[in-house]
Amino acid sequence: MQESCGVIGVRLNDKKENALSKVYYGLYAMQHRGQESCGVAIFDGKEIKLHKDMGLVSEVFRDLKLEGFAAIGHVRYSTKGESQLINAQPILIDYSYGSFAIAHNGQIVNYKELKAELSRKGCVFTTTTDSEIIAQVIVQEHIKSGDFILGIKRAMRKIKGSYSLTILKDDKIIAIRDPNGFRPLVLGKRGSNYIVASESCAIECVNFKVVRDVKPGEILIISESIRSEAVPSERKSICMFEYVYFSRPDSVIDGIPVYQVRKKLGELLYKEAPIKADLVTAVPDSGITAALGFSRASGIPYGESLIKNRYLGRTFIMPNQKDREEGVKIKLMPLKSEIKDKVIVLVDDSIVRGTTIKRIISNLKEAGAKEVHVRISCPPIRYPCYYGIDMQTREEFIARNKTVEEIKEEIGADSLAYISLDGLIKAIGLPREKLCLACLTGEYPVKPEQMKLTN
Amino acid sequence: MQESCGVIGVRLNDKKENALSKVYYGLYAMQHRGQESCGVAIFDGKEIKLHKDMGLVSEVFRDLKLEGFAAIGHVRYSTKGESQLINAQPILIDYSYGSFAIAHNGQIVNYKELKAELSRKGCVFTTTTDSEIIAQVIVQEHIKSGDFILGIKRAMRKIKGSYSLTILKDDKIIAIRDPNGFRPLVLGKRGSNYIVASESCAIECVNFKVVRDVKPGEILIISESIRSEAVPSERKSICMFEYVYFSRPDSVIDGIPVYQVRKKLGELLYKEAPIKADLVTAVPDSGITAALGFSRASGIPYGESLIKNRYLGRTFIMPNQKDREEGVKIKLMPLKSEIKDKVIVLVDDSIVRGTTIKRIISNLKEAGAKEVHVRISCPPIRYPCYYGIDMQTREEFIARNKTVEEIKEEIGADSLAYISLDGLIKAIGLPREKLCLACLTGEYPVKPEQMKLTN
Amino acid sequence: MQESCGVIGVRLNDKKENALSKVYYGLYAMQHRGQESCGVAIFDGKEIKLHKDMGLVSEVFRDLKLEGFAAIGHVRYSTKGESQLINAQPILIDYSYGSFAIAHNGQIVNYKELKAELSRKGCVFTTTTDSEIIAQVIVQEHIKSGDFILGIKRAMRKIKGSYSLTILKDDKIIAIRDPNGFRPLVLGKRGSNYIVASESCAIECVNFKVVRDVKPGEILIISESIRSEAVPSERKSICMFEYVYFSRPDSVIDGIPVYQVRKKLGELLYKEAPIKADLVTAVPDSGITAALGFSRASGIPYGESLIKNRYLGRTFIMPNQKDREEGVKIKLMPLKSEIKDKVIVLVDDSIVRGTTIKRIISNLKEAGAKEVHVRISCPPIRYPCYYGIDMQTREEFIARNKTVEEIKEEIGADSLAYISLDGLIKAIGLPREKLCLACLTGEYPVKPEQMKLTN
Amino acid sequence: MQESCGVIGVRLNDKKENALSKVYYGLYAMQHRGQESCGVAIFDGKEIKLHKDMGLVSEVFRDLKLEGFAAIGHVRYSTKGESQLINAQPILIDYSYGSFAIAHNGQIVNYKELKAELSRKGCVFTTTTDSEIIAQVIVQEHIKSGDFILGIKRAMRKIKGSYSLTILKDDKIIAIRDPNGFRPLVLGKRGSNYIVASESCAIECVNFKVVRDVKPGEILIISESIRSEAVPSERKSICMFEYVYFSRPDSVIDGIPVYQVRKKLGELLYKEAPIKADLVTAVPDSGITAALGFSRASGIPYGESLIKNRYLGRTFIMPNQKDREEGVKIKLMPLKSEIKDKVIVLVDDSIVRGTTIKRIISNLKEAGAKEVHVRISCPPIRYPCYYGIDMQTREEFIARNKTVEEIKEEIGADSLAYISLDGLIKAIGLPREKLCLACLTGEYPVKPEQMKLTN
Repeated sequence: MQESCGVIGVRLNDKKENALSKVYYGLYAMQHRGQESCGVAIFDGKEIKLHKDMGLVSEVFRDLKLEGFAAIGHVRYSTKGESQLINAQPILIDYSYGSFAIAHNGQIVNYKELKAELSRKGCVFTTTTDSEIIAQVIVQEHIKSGDFILGIKRAMRKIKGSYSLTILKDDKIIAIRDPNGFRPLVLGKRGSNYIVASESCAIECVNFKVVRDVKPGEILIISESIRSEAVPSERKSICMFEYVYFSRPDSVIDGIPVYQVRKKLGELLYKEAPIKADLVTAVPDSGITAALGFSRASGIPYGESLIKNRYLGRTFIMPNQKDREEGVKIKLMPLKSEIKDKVIVLVDDSIVRGTTIKRIISNLKEAGAKEVHVRISCPPIRYPCYYGIDMQTREEFIARNKTVEEIKEEIGADSLAYISLDGLIKAIGLPREKLCLACLTGEYPVKPEQMKLTN
Repeated sequence: MQESCGVIGVRLNDKKENALSKVYYGLYAMQHRGQESCGVAIFDGKEIKLHKDMGLVSEVFRDLKLEGFAAIGHVRYSTKGESQLINAQPILIDYSYGSFAIAHNGQIVNYKELKAELSRKGCVFTTTTDSEIIAQVIVQEHIKSGDFILGIKRAMRKIKGSYSLTILKDDKIIAIRDPNGFRPLVLGKRGSNYIVASESCAIECVNFKVVRDVKPGEILIISESIRSEAVPSERKSICMFEYVYFSRPDSVIDGIPVYQVRKKLGELLYKEAPIKADLVTAVPDSGITAALGFSRASGIPYGESLIKNRYLGRTFIMPNQKDREEGVKIKLMPLKSEIKDKVIVLVDDSIVRGTTIKRIISNLKEAGAKEVHVRISCPPIRYPCYYGIDMQTREEFIARNKTVEEIKEEIGADSLAYISLDGLIKAIGLPREKLCLACLTGEYPVKPEQMKLTN
Repeated sequence: MQESCGVIGVRLNDKKENALSKVYYGLYAMQHRGQESCGVAIFDGKEIKLHKDMGLVSEVFRDLKLEGFAAIGHVRYSTKGESQLINAQPILIDYSYGSFAIAHNGQIVNYKELKAELSRKGCVFTTTTDSEIIAQVIVQEHIKSGDFILGIKRAMRKIKGSYSLTILKDDKIIAIRDPNGFRPLVLGKRGSNYIVASESCAIECVNFKVVRDVKPGEILIISESIRSEAVPSERKSICMFEYVYFSRPDSVIDGIPVYQVRKKLGELLYKEAPIKADLVTAVPDSGITAALGFSRASGIPYGESLIKNRYLGRTFIMPNQKDREEGVKIKLMPLKSEIKDKVIVLVDDSIVRGTTIKRIISNLKEAGAKEVHVRISCPPIRYPCYYGIDMQTREEFIARNKTVEEIKEEIGADSLAYISLDGLIKAIGLPREKLCLACLTGEYPVKPEQMKLTN
Repeated sequence: MQESCGVIGVRLNDKKENALSKVYYGLYAMQHRGQESCGVAIFDGKEIKLHKDMGLVSEVFRDLKLEGFAAIGHVRYSTKGESQLINAQPILIDYSYGSFAIAHNGQIVNYKELKAELSRKGCVFTTTTDSEIIAQVIVQEHIKSGDFILGIKRAMRKIKGSYSLTILKDDKIIAIRDPNGFRPLVLGKRGSNYIVASESCAIECVNFKVVRDVKPGEILIISESIRSEAVPSERKSICMFEYVYFSRPDSVIDGIPVYQVRKKLGELLYKEAPIKADLVTAVPDSGITAALGFSRASGIPYGESLIKNRYLGRTFIMPNQKDREEGVKIKLMPLKSEIKDKVIVLVDDSIVRGTTIKRIISNLKEAGAKEVHVRISCPPIRYPCYYGIDMQTREEFIARNKTVEEIKEEIGADSLAYISLDGLIKAIGLPREKLCLACLTGEYPVKPEQMKLTN
């Protein structure tokens, strides 16, 4: 299964330039979308070369010597499990009509059905990703129709779920966004050079200009020029969580700046659940922007209350049971001087199991806070996501079994409020029907087969 | 020469516990004080074992299996130069009266004089650190006086400059702060277990309670209990830069919370150089707290305007000339939606060569900012530091040759103001004579031999 | 394309034991068959877990925590080219009837034909190995026939070329040797635990007893007990190069000890090309055994003349042009005291481009050797191998364009002789028709498609 | 069991050349003398730069960018203990008269006495090596005498024990061999460029010519030309173990080729302890040369009986108890075909605890050997070495407590013989009084303080 990832595609018209550095810096800017593995497929005029491995962009691309004018790249989220390496992307596929490389962000909801159909035809699978399924459906439809783009269109009719794709086929980059537009995908340009990426920050960091979002159902075929094709797109369902948490604050999704949404969430959160307090503060870094909005709306000054250690790396030895019992504070340290004797509003974007925020509240109180009022800038998540946000841990969301009052008691807050669904929609500013709110409401824009099975 | 470093010492009365994890988490909390190398010396009841290497705390301590109830540790700042490994600390010294390990934060100003004196006696040196000089002076005085603590006292009379030391001698931890108290050093306690560290955050992160600062000129001898001795301390000269930039915001130095000073600096900065603007913003992370203070004092809302990429590691491939010319934005990305058409106040703690802030201002304007007014929360640094803050790059401070007006022109700001010396002193809240302001005023509390030489 | 590799399969009846350590030590014993990458697929009663990576066995298996009672493993030869990682084995295949893992030693000669056929059905390929082709043909035939073993038999009729396979399917190990028996494959046993491996040394190193060679065309299905099936095997064609060079000297292939063959080659080499000399010596390590045989047959004493440095690792910085011109001797150093003023017979198994032996002869003469007579224990290789021995460099064999006399002149030897084809056959002791001698004679037991294409 | 190290010094007259590569290849050729750590000190005309670290030469020198025309280097053997890094060499010493770097092979026997004397003067020590003691004694004598070379001479009178040294002082290389000449040290030349190294193989590998051995008590001062000075040398005592085991077979020590000695040892071993047998064989690699000599003398053919795995690296996971009990053969594998039903002579240079040879004999018999007769090419080692061969494990030498007959029983040999002391002396060919035989006879050429202490 794919979790939230990041994709990129670069097509340079000036063939003396190297697409590799654009992919590198672009993926680096989207590292927050996936830290497990990453990779690049690049076309040098003759053949596609592939490099991928476990690790951060700066590690995997180190000492990499590849050249080409067309390339795609991918960053992948870290999840549990062995032999993840085979699941790294891009995937390079060889078949009767040649070869192509594909990078996928999203999750297919009729994975089993498509896999069964392909299996019946004798197809085999060497990864456990739904991305390989997408690739194979495209191959089948290409063979049937005799045309790659036509094959893609037909494949898009069969594939249900969320997918933002970059494909490297010969000297072309093909960028595809699913008809619902669950995941973002943005087009950029500099001169006659093109770039597509999951987030606009990846475009702007290499000093390309954002042109526009790839439309739901759109297929962009990019070579010297751009050609746009499309499959029908009935309903747009952009993931609200990209705005609330997942995307970088400097990204703009479907024309709406992420930072503005988060600030607005904080403002509305105050309006919905006002409180008198001395200080508005955030769980860093996820709650900062909403806290700033809360502060502006309420007039309560914003300040830091928790200092985050920036050196937590993969080699870090986590505290053992004894250390934890002794209260070792590794990641976040309360800022005594700022919180002593104060009534505090603590803003974050979500509560997962509640253990972390419980410890934070306890640390804040121990450090002298008089009261801690928690405000969450996303409504309670109660349903699984089948469109590419990793809800493994989210399935343990405390809100699934408990009322807001019960959660408040559990975490030791003096008050607790979540933003309302209406507040969320208002903050984003898109009509409700253009958003995917499935994890909040249980209303799935595209029915996932997992649901059918359980029903 | 020593640059700003961090030291720690741990003495557990319960000998079944292991001091290693306290040193580990404590150094990890002080990683910002030095990322080049680190190490630990630990006493297990029989002998002192030493481990040190190049790298971050989480790397060097990985797979480390050492045990003991008394230990000291060190983090060291990264500077240019080869074979730094021999300069890593702690230093373990073997001599006629046994052995001890020493960790040093600070810089000796009569280094050459002491070294010459030791050399004349036939002493040899295997590192290029002034820390080794300190150790050897202590050895000489120990031999002469026959008593270790007496030797330390006599050594302290000979050694001029800044030094916060932790020493591991047999089963004791000895913590020493120079008579001027240039660098911080704090004592903490849990039950009958003791800790000393450069910053209070290292004490609180392992859930010890801060007891008090080690006094200028004080020698703490820590075993089952604590004994305090002292050499005369004529003038206290705590480094203002620890408050302004170097220490972690959650640390408290000589009773004054760092975070409060920085906030106050922002407030006074507004009062000294008021401006009408739409947004107060900071160069992350160094300018944030002062920007918050500026916002509160001015009533102008605070907001983020630059997003910092958190994944910059040592393997990162920096942009080459061509990439830079193309305007690749790796570290900081302007937040268009927040700054478009706005008059912005940009706060930071210092301007070094001016190239970085010049690029930031240019990026902000390119992203739509109407005006960018720069406010710096530290007065212009014009003189070298001889007490342990690395001024290698600081010597290239733009303020050394240019007026504020010239700098403003150079960096392309619409206005520029530095906090005044009085403002700085007021923000810290200590009498002027208790601060070291040498890098601002050229008045050195302890005359460095470098100056004598040039005079 | 697959080059010479090593495969292993382990099936333990006692399910409390772990097959991993057997695979580990077995692959380690066969490390000479491939140093590029290696891997293991292991079944723990529930699912197959896969681990593979670039590097030596001791590196890739480090810290590996997998458990199971049935497992297969693979070591792969190092060749040029990027993104080799995707070509590492075992390959784990998922399809309509479940999944299996496969490890392959050999090379398919109708690769393109099979791939085209599979492609026409819509199959896709994610590696560039013929091993994946084998897997997919098996899948197709399994689906068609409805039975895995029947599918394998049918696949074996379609697949032309050399293949020794170990397959992990559910809790079974299936061991397969192609009908020609090009590559070795041996069965071993301890109690009711079974092992199959490319070489007997891998069986004996874990203290299992060799039972017998897997027969050409045989399929062994190993679970609690062993079942043998077979496809017709018309002609046995075991690769002569396994005896001459590739296998470890302590291995026994098809009942014939490799060491004995090499010694015999040396003996016959003397008989065919006798010479009066003071010393018989070898290019270490490849020529040692034949040199010992030559010494025994001739009565000329054997001695070392070249000392090999054992510390050549992957991080070794090879001499640059200037170093080479200066005559830096990194790998082999002449043993002056042993060779001075002597007439020397220098034995090796082959001459590739001639540059290495030319330098060795020159070094020996410079070190005082009076004459250097070269004896090669394999007839001149003049034709490419299509059955799994990497002839990339072999295609540059000096013997392809030059007469023996010309080569002698080129390399500066005082005389040069290769063993005759008859001598080779006699030394191995198998009838000529049971050997693959294609690289010597150009007579290919199974016609490779590459030849058809060029004809 | 080895502790001995290797040293090198290079002085190029052509200052455009880089001494680094000579040190690199020379140390690489002497890697067998120490695999723990290594390093280089190099003078570029201005200052000495030092690089040293744990690891093999090929690892530590990787990516090293240093330049200079005078340099020394060191390889160090791996022993138990933590924080070995501080003990790596060369040591760079800074003192009143400047600085120098020193590399040492050997062991000082009045270490404690010298250290005590230095300590009384107030000297401190930052390593636990006797090499640092040597350096400090030289410093003291330099200061006293005012002349570096005079200081060295005086120091040589104080320092007792074994030391072959290379020193880098300004633009000079100084090579020193102790008056007994315990450890080897050889001078080489190419044009007006000089090299000194522990073994001649390091000289010849970089294509320099061996000039002669540095004489016991000699001091060579090498710059554009060579100057020789000396201290009185009463008795030459070259270590017999350099010939028997430690040096590379292609090295020549004091004019005697190591290979010839080892071959002769085998010949005499046959004459002293003749036996009728089918095959002479060796424990690889240590016993091979003596086995060849035994074979020639006896007329019994030499053959391999044990195949050594060449891929044993540092990451290798050694068999656990269970694996060992199961008889896992990792390092050495018996060559069944060669030994079945044969009476075998097995030659090695020593028996340590007897466990390894016991297992080898058992494996050989299990593989079919009729009889195994063990011949050891060194007399039984019964006394500790104080001159630089690590006898840590030698103290566990089985010969210290057991008779030859008892050892034979213990290891399961059919017969066992050690070469006699006379045989050893004859094989080396030097007069008995010119050899150090202390570990065999207990007669120490220079009385070690450890002995005095125990007496």
